[in-house]
Amino acid sequence: MNETNEPTTRGRDGAASGLARERRRTPRGTPATDERSTPRPLYALVIEDVRPHVDLGRHAPKRVVGQTCEVSAAIFKDGHDLLAARVRYRAPGDAAWRVAPLTYLHDTDRWIGSFVLDRIGRWAFTVEAWTDRWGTWRSGLEKKLAAGQDVHVELLEGAELAEGAARRQRFGEARSRLQQAATRLRDTGLALADRARVALEPELTALVAAHYAPDDLTTYGVELPLQVDRERAAFASWYEFFPRSASPEPGRHGTFRDAEALLPRIADLGFDVVYLPPIHPIGHTFRKGRNNTLTPEPGDVGSPWAIGNEDGGHDAVAPELGTLDDFERFVRAARALGLEVALDYALQCSPDHPWVKTHPDWFTVRPDGSIQYAENPPKKYQDIYPINFWSEDRDALWAACRDVLLFWVERGVTTFRVDNPHTKPFAFWEWVIRDVQAAHPEVVFLSEAFTRPNKLLNLAKLGFTQSYTYFTWKNTAPQLREWLAEFSDPAVLEHYRGNLFTNTPDILHEFLVHGGRPAFRLRHLLAGTLSPLYGIYSGYELAENVPVRPGSEEYLDSEKYQLRPRDFSAPGNLDADLRRLNRIRREQPALQRADNLRFHGSDNDQVLFFAKGRHGLSGPPRGDDLLIAVNLDPHGPQETMVHVPVDELGLGHDREYVVEDLLTGVRYTWRGNRAYVRLDPAHEPGHVLRVVRE
Amino acid sequence: MNETNEPTTRGRDGAASGLARERRRTPRGTPATDERSTPRPLYALVIEDVRPHVDLGRHAPKRVVGQTCEVSAAIFKDGHDLLAARVRYRAPGDAAWRVAPLTYLHDTDRWIGSFVLDRIGRWAFTVEAWTDRWGTWRSGLEKKLAAGQDVHVELLEGAELAEGAARRQRFGEARSRLQQAATRLRDTGLALADRARVALEPELTALVAAHYAPDDLTTYGVELPLQVDRERAAFASWYEFFPRSASPEPGRHGTFRDAEALLPRIADLGFDVVYLPPIHPIGHTFRKGRNNTLTPEPGDVGSPWAIGNEDGGHDAVAPELGTLDDFERFVRAARALGLEVALDYALQCSPDHPWVKTHPDWFTVRPDGSIQYAENPPKKYQDIYPINFWSEDRDALWAACRDVLLFWVERGVTTFRVDNPHTKPFAFWEWVIRDVQAAHPEVVFLSEAFTRPNKLLNLAKLGFTQSYTYFTWKNTAPQLREWLAEFSDPAVLEHYRGNLFTNTPDILHEFLVHGGRPAFRLRHLLAGTLSPLYGIYSGYELAENVPVRPGSEEYLDSEKYQLRPRDFSAPGNLDADLRRLNRIRREQPALQRADNLRFHGSDNDQVLFFAKGRHGLSGPPRGDDLLIAVNLDPHGPQETMVHVPVDELGLGHDREYVVEDLLTGVRYTWRGNRAYVRLDPAHEPGHVLRVVRE
Repeated sequence: MNETNEPTTRGRDGAASGLARERRRTPRGTPATDERSTPRPLYALVIEDVRPHVDLGRHAPKRVVGQTCEVSAAIFKDGHDLLAARVRYRAPGDAAWRVAPLTYLHDTDRWIGSFVLDRIGRWAFTVEAWTDRWGTWRSGLEKKLAAGQDVHVELLEGAELAEGAARRQRFGEARSRLQQAATRLRDTGLALADRARVALEPELTALVAAHYAPDDLTTYGVELPLQVDRERAAFASWYEFFPRSASPEPGRHGTFRDAEALLPRIADLGFDVVYLPPIHPIGHTFRKGRNNTLTPEPGDVGSPWAIGNEDGGHDAVAPELGTLDDFERFVRAARALGLEVALDYALQCSPDHPWVKTHPDWFTVRPDGSIQYAENPPKKYQDIYPINFWSEDRDALWAACRDVLLFWVERGVTTFRVDNPHTKPFAFWEWVIRDVQAAHPEVVFLSEAFTRPNKLLNLAKLGFTQSYTYFTWKNTAPQLREWLAEFSDPAVLEHYRGNLFTNTPDILHEFLVHGGRPAFRLRHLLAGTLSPLYGIYSGYELAENVPVRPGSEEYLDSEKYQLRPRDFSAPGNLDADLRRLNRIRREQPALQRADNLRFHGSDNDQVLFFAKGRHGLSGPPRGDDLLIAVNLDPHGPQETMVHVPVDELGLGHDREYVVEDLLTGVRYTWRGNRAYVRLDPAHEPGHVLRVVRE
Repeated sequence: MNETNEPTTRGRDGAASGLARERRRTPRGTPATDERSTPRPLYALVIEDVRPHVDLGRHAPKRVVGQTCEVSAAIFKDGHDLLAARVRYRAPGDAAWRVAPLTYLHDTDRWIGSFVLDRIGRWAFTVEAWTDRWGTWRSGLEKKLAAGQDVHVELLEGAELAEGAARRQRFGEARSRLQQAATRLRDTGLALADRARVALEPELTALVAAHYAPDDLTTYGVELPLQVDRERAAFASWYEFFPRSASPEPGRHGTFRDAEALLPRIADLGFDVVYLPPIHPIGHTFRKGRNNTLTPEPGDVGSPWAIGNEDGGHDAVAPELGTLDDFERFVRAARALGLEVALDYALQCSPDHPWVKTHPDWFTVRPDGSIQYAENPPKKYQDIYPINFWSEDRDALWAACRDVLLFWVERGVTTFRVDNPHTKPFAFWEWVIRDVQAAHPEVVFLSEAFTRPNKLLNLAKLGFTQSYTYFTWKNTAPQLREWLAEFSDPAVLEHYRGNLFTNTPDILHEFLVHGGRPAFRLRHLLAGTLSPLYGIYSGYELAENVPVRPGSEEYLDSEKYQLRPRDFSAPGNLDADLRRLNRIRREQPALQRADNLRFHGSDNDQVLFFAKGRHGLSGPPRGDDLLIAVNLDPHGPQETMVHVPVDELGLGHDREYVVEDLLTGVRYTWRGNRAYVRLDPAHEPGHVLRVVRE
């Protein structure tokens, strides 16, 4: 029934061969025609613009378990008949569909209803509507009675409707009660007024409604999907670190045991997810040296993204890190601290990866017999072989890639950060995410696709739970406002969940280089308040900000190519900021959603001012309204008048109100829609103000 | 292949029976699955957001013949391969599809192309894309050569591509040239540089491109329709009048001969379409008397919308008007004057209509055996029987309704103004319009649906060429701006063409009642400048403005119920205004489009100020930029500073420019973005200023 806009791919022979052989597209049945052969769509009423949807059902909007899915539709018919409508929906694992009523809202001319999303996984719903014959008849009768008109024919019509409902019951009380009502409606021995009273009895209306089968039940032409995820899919704080740098002994390669010892601090800081770059054996051939040189020294550890050697590939643990048991123990230790483990899923192979020997046809072989390495001409990445997803053996290949994910899921991994998915076929991601989530709907996929918006957003649409964003390159107020105007658009938020990383092993933005520690503080504050999902890459808390060369976004002595042990207790660390903001995020529902971000005016572009409101699209407000001001200048104090949205907050234009800075506990009394703010990076990078209403 | 969101309607047995028996929906084929049975969509690249579309192909966007259809799409693939794309389109009547290239625009990250709409009717198009293997290879080769890298394997890859292209040719020069190129690319006897030069020869690239068959041709999942209409579908001035009032002899029922005599004046005034209320025999039973009384006098002519008596029904001419020959003569006379005739298509029957006797099952029979008359409880319209479009005999019924249209089309009628289509099934309109236009694509359908936007716009989507609008009720500047912000939205203009009638036999707005002649002038000016489609109902030019009672929108002595002969030469008539504006509309391309309306500021809300620009979405600008100011106050002069959009007009902020009032010929010199305007209804209701650029 689902009709979506999936494209078809055909091989050279034009038939459904080659790539497309697995797809057979059956043309939708055409209606019977009259002698002129114009297809005649027959529908009694129109159902259109059903929401929520992404591309009219081609992709699934995202929700979080426990939420209510608000459904709305435009439903109408010719004439004045009353309609009735319902949403038909199915939860994952249910064989049967359930229904919930839709009711008409005059103000918007739309029908609305809802159902509770009580479990994670892929749901489906559609909308049905029909003519409410009894309601139409009853309404007309009431109006005619009020106008003093003769209604004896109307009563006969009502009798027919009641009899029709009665006939559909095989037996029982309902049948006889409906029959009785019909008889009384017809009974010319009764006074007209008495017969009319029978007609208008609420019990009769309820009885008919309970047993009424529509004669023109019309279903929306599309079955719409819905992806319901768990809470942490939409609200979480991420911490990335390399286990191999975790050893307390200088020069020794860190192990999972060492990494375990770092977990209590990370949990104490209030993070939810620990994300590890690839933990698999690392290739030897063309191994990179420190600072990405092509001439490694003996002992250089190489890039974890050059996956695979004689010790195994994507389903193995690098022996230097420990055993598989050590990894599983690490995962249990994390879980005991309330942390989940995210692994890096980098679908590429070093030349030493086992698959290169066992499945050479999973790669691209060049005319000289060599295997194609990764490149973006004239750049070459000879330590990486890209996988050929369109191999002749792709059934086995795709299954093997999927099985890697399942392997780690079975060992306690709940989340995958996917490396550069935009360099692998989109069709593969669409399939593998659905396939894994069919059995494990709790698995979260984060897309690391720093690419143009079309691709970045399509990956979100086709199934990625979360997406890296352009945040690192948005540092001024205009940049932040413009970027978030686009990426907080309600239509985009239906399928996209941005995870604002402040830095990554690949990205040290010059704002941090030039801004130093105050810049790190303000960017962390921004990330954690602008978005329910954010992350840092370890070292951030120590304000590590030396690039490999001026103007480069690469770190000097990048941890991608060498061990980087750290003393997290070093003076000047940002732990207090991290702990404080993560606590506030957990306490404040307004920070746990993406749809409530509203920028407001600030007379000084160096001070960004925005609200995270407590009102949702439905239901009572939760928590506090928050007003957040951030000084975007790491070098010195900035002051401004901010424009407080007093109308939206219900605060009135001329009365005082109190705001409390959750960062410091300090309270301020403001009045009206302008407030003075001064922020000194020597003290705090911003205010996170809750509107005090108690 | 077309997959749209048409709803399904099922009968009580739940099967495709009853209403839905003509619709058989074949589920779309599912792709082959792996052992986990997750459907695996396979596509090499993504094609999405193809425009233009209305509801992703469910309905057809509207265009005008001679225009270029600009197509755009988001097309992308994983990795860095170069893509190629084309639009595949088919004109009505063509067996074969044609193609036109799409090219990539970096600024918008979209692919664009176009094709010329050289005939009217229903077109179809879709988008295809594929990997340009040769272009990708060639681009990589160039970069590697520029970087001084070894390219001998690359040359072998190029040879393989050339050989592949050669193999696909059966014979001929292309085959041998491609083979030769492949040989030379492989020839290790040649210097690398020479082989590279062969690779980069433009002729070789052209040869490969001409004979390249993609190995991953991917088609957008939807075949998108396009409705191309003739010019007057989108740009025309309408004049409505009742032929029965055309007699020069007082009291005599007018005939088509009399009506013919009115045509030269109408043509001279510059109108394009003459629209006649129903011309069919009028029912006797429950005939309405003057001013809609239920007690007619003998000789009362009744309402033309109560169609049918012993003289015939919808395919007959009321004998009082003349014969069918007289009607056809009238049509020819109109055509000779450059006018087309629009008839009123009112699908309802008086109790005396022939169908009531010959096809009683085409109506709704009540339990007492009587036929259901029109009603909206408690209001009754006993002179009208609504048709039961869901009759058991609906095949014959729908065919008969369609045949009425064809009957008049065959007698020279090109346009139908459809009475209250929102009281008849939408599915009927969707079918009958398509069916008639399949044989007669030139036929225009105007929807008279004064109803809520959802329904009004759905009728436009499903095929009505033009739609009556809310114009009569929009008299203040805020009302006009708000209404047109919604109804000039680009997405709405894809399917909706508003025809701004200033008045109708049913609607005399109190603005005209209280405003008198100056109000008539200003409202006509508004209608004819805001929209390429507008109309008046005769009597407007004589400023007829007496309602049946204060506050009513009905005319006193409404022509719906009695003859209304007029002396169009009476003093104070508006003919000069009508003639002048219709002439200007024909001379000014900017007034012939709906998509170029932009409101601009005016410091006085009584003066509405807007632009109709000369730049289209594509192609060179046509005609002049127009700036239009209208005094909305019929009672006295108003003055204001208007805000001229000098940037958009390319006029600069500090230099003088000249505007010429096309209404009076007077020129004004303005400077910068503010201009003084004073309008006195005693003289002119507004300015229609062209920006002088010569």
